[in-house]
Amino acid sequence: MAVRVLPVEGIPEVRPGDDLAALVAEAADVRADDIVVVTHKIVSKAEGRLVDLRTVEPSALAKAFAARYRKDPRQIEVVLRESRRIVRMDRGLIISETHHGFVCANAGVDASNVPGDEVVCLLPVDPDASSARLRERLAQRAGSDLAVIVSDSFGRPWRDGITNVAIGVAGMRPLVDYRGETDPHGFPLEASVLAVADELAAAAELVMGKTAGIPIAIVRGYPYERAAGTGRALIMPPERDLFR
Amino acid sequence: MAVRVLPVEGIPEVRPGDDLAALVAEAADVRADDIVVVTHKIVSKAEGRLVDLRTVEPSALAKAFAARYRKDPRQIEVVLRESRRIVRMDRGLIISETHHGFVCANAGVDASNVPGDEVVCLLPVDPDASSARLRERLAQRAGSDLAVIVSDSFGRPWRDGITNVAIGVAGMRPLVDYRGETDPHGFPLEASVLAVADELAAAAELVMGKTAGIPIAIVRGYPYERAAGTGRALIMPPERDLFR
Repeated sequence: MAVRVLPVEGIPEVRPGDDLAALVAEAADVRADDIVVVTHKIVSKAEGRLVDLRTVEPSALAKAFAARYRKDPRQIEVVLRESRRIVRMDRGLIISETHHGFVCANAGVDASNVPGDEVVCLLPVDPDASSARLRERLAQRAGSDLAVIVSDSFGRPWRDGITNVAIGVAGMRPLVDYRGETDPHGFPLEASVLAVADELAAAAELVMGKTAGIPIAIVRGYPYERAAGTGRALIMPPERDLFR
Repeated sequence: MAVRVLPVEGIPEVRPGDDLAALVAEAADVRADDIVVVTHKIVSKAEGRLVDLRTVEPSALAKAFAARYRKDPRQIEVVLRESRRIVRMDRGLIISETHHGFVCANAGVDASNVPGDEVVCLLPVDPDASSARLRERLAQRAGSDLAVIVSDSFGRPWRDGITNVAIGVAGMRPLVDYRGETDPHGFPLEASVLAVADELAAAAELVMGKTAGIPIAIVRGYPYERAAGTGRALIMPPERDLFR
């Protein structure tokens, strides 16, 4: 059974207060059991998670780091404010843990795909709540059940390049646990909890493209397990994280 | 333009010496510009990368670690032999850097989906060479160009669950570099080198399933950039790895 990944084209520039569910429903033929993957940027924009840098007073730390690497001290300040722990701060880049618990570059603060010279975009305050709201409204309109993933592109240790991951999830189980099941030879499967929501987010990225301005994709035909689901569940508890 | 992910069903149990290209060509209608994603396990099996644990003499380190966590000391010994550096060794699990440079659990040594009580499967010696050989033979048979990815499921720091990644690549550029390009607002894109080969491997996993025994998927409709390509390019050079 094939899985299809469909780009949703024709989404206009999203502004604070816009009704994202209405925009998606107008642009796409959303069907039962679809997984609607939405880049966080348009969710953040609709929720007004934009900061005008002209209103930001940088701290001494932000000024010092920005001066050393020729960065905008106000943007560095925003990154520090969006962080609850700094993992690494070097070469102009900050790897930090956000208030949600995501470990990523620059706390997800990003100036690309944002209109205006002096505006940066933050991650949604609660990507799971954003996903759940969008899922509920899309399901109402479609008259059927579906799942929603809010995605962002994160770097990762050990491997080059960024990949799309799920930062918010609603309507599906984000992890599929094969432990206790057996392979076709009857042997128990090891280390087999799959982060399927991250794999779905990655698949969606393939039709989005950074420059094409396609912020939404639909994954159709993947038999996900229905559940409330969260993106939070994809954050590894530190005490279990052997890679940390 | 949609991307399709198609499972390749009917691949028999692969044995050392089997002609993988012939098995794929018989089971699937491989077309021009397809990306054929193959789990490393059947590549390893065809290449005879299987170890009979009855032939393995465990070291003192392997014995001590195995005794503490009730593991098979011979399997621990194989993991140590497949490693060039131990990153972490705790709770019965070894996170190490393989001789290829991959950082993963148990050096990719795995007893699941392998027939026989006493046999474990290693990663291919050179997954890029395996990918290139398979690509060449499939392209000859199909009479057209295509790409091959050899995949494995790796855990990762910070996030729970494993995801499929590309350990071998042939026929496509594994990283797509958007730096220097601009977004629809004309602003330069930041931090935008996408690990598309990993995203393709992740997408392929969606139709494979650990228990279903589907070791191959075809991704169709993704406009990859043709190049020799390697999976090695996805290994982050330590000096650039801020997450490390």
